[in-house]
Amino acid sequence: MRVATFTLIGSLKWAKLGFYDQQKHEYGEILLSEPQEIASCIGNISLKEGEPFVHAHAVLADENGNTKGGHLLGGAVFAAEIHLTELLGPDLVRKKDDVTGLSLWQP
Amino acid sequence: MRVATFTLIGSLKWAKLGFYDQQKHEYGEILLSEPQEIASCIGNISLKEGEPFVHAHAVLADENGNTKGGHLLGGAVFAAEIHLTELLGPDLVRKKDDVTGLSLWQP
Amino acid sequence: MRVATFTLIGSLKWAKLGFYDQQKHEYGEILLSEPQEIASCIGNISLKEGEPFVHAHAVLADENGNTKGGHLLGGAVFAAEIHLTELLGPDLVRKKDDVTGLSLWQP
Repeated sequence: MRVATFTLIGSLKWAKLGFYDQQKHEYGEILLSEPQEIASCIGNISLKEGEPFVHAHAVLADENGNTKGGHLLGGAVFAAEIHLTELLGPDLVRKKDDVTGLSLWQP
Repeated sequence: MRVATFTLIGSLKWAKLGFYDQQKHEYGEILLSEPQEIASCIGNISLKEGEPFVHAHAVLADENGNTKGGHLLGGAVFAAEIHLTELLGPDLVRKKDDVTGLSLWQP
Repeated sequence: MRVATFTLIGSLKWAKLGFYDQQKHEYGEILLSEPQEIASCIGNISLKEGEPFVHAHAVLADENGNTKGGHLLGGAVFAAEIHLTELLGPDLVRKKDDVTGLSLWQP
């Protein structure tokens, strides 16, 4: 699979979220060491340096329903249900963008 | 409809969210008695004990934009817009999983 | 494009969220003047007064992962990735609904 989009719900044993600093062009990390519900997860798969690359954002909720959100950097799945839609057709390729410092899809 | 996936936005008059305890294998409940925006809702429909079963996670926001998230256990709709995609093909069936205590899709 | 549904992730330089007062039938505004991750955004396009109209809800996260959510009223995009599904077929038309005060899809 080279290009896809997905939504996902479930729960994680722990997670690490990221916040991209729009000035410094680097990610800050937010570690959530306790179990979390995946209240929302939206993402996609495209090509970066020739390999399939997953980009996902998530909103996670703890036992009191309190939420943290951001770029999903890592975590351990307890259970998850994904709806993955493969997109056939031309490849979607990421390339470093000088303005944002991010790897963005090429026009 | 037997198998489907959906996203939903709108608002609720009240809601009840759940957090699944990964050790005790039971849901804790979070009652939100005030009106909420459905900031995000992602879910699916599959078969459990032969009947269509809805599984949805949500992020809800109050009048100050403050959010709670988790497994959507209940609520009363004020207004809602759903994008429901029916998935034709083989049935997707939930069965009790001993490791997690959840009803998960069978391989 | 007249009818569509979408999910979107990315980040904003600032944003304005809304909360619809179910009694007063008016939006309260929540201004987020700092950069935000778009942890989740779900929306649709349909016709309102003959023109394509975007309706989106979002969960936004700040540098600490703290989230605010609601109806997306405005903002400035830093970077964004959208999965937009055009829905062919009959038009989907919004019309003022007296019960809720919202412009809802007609049956």
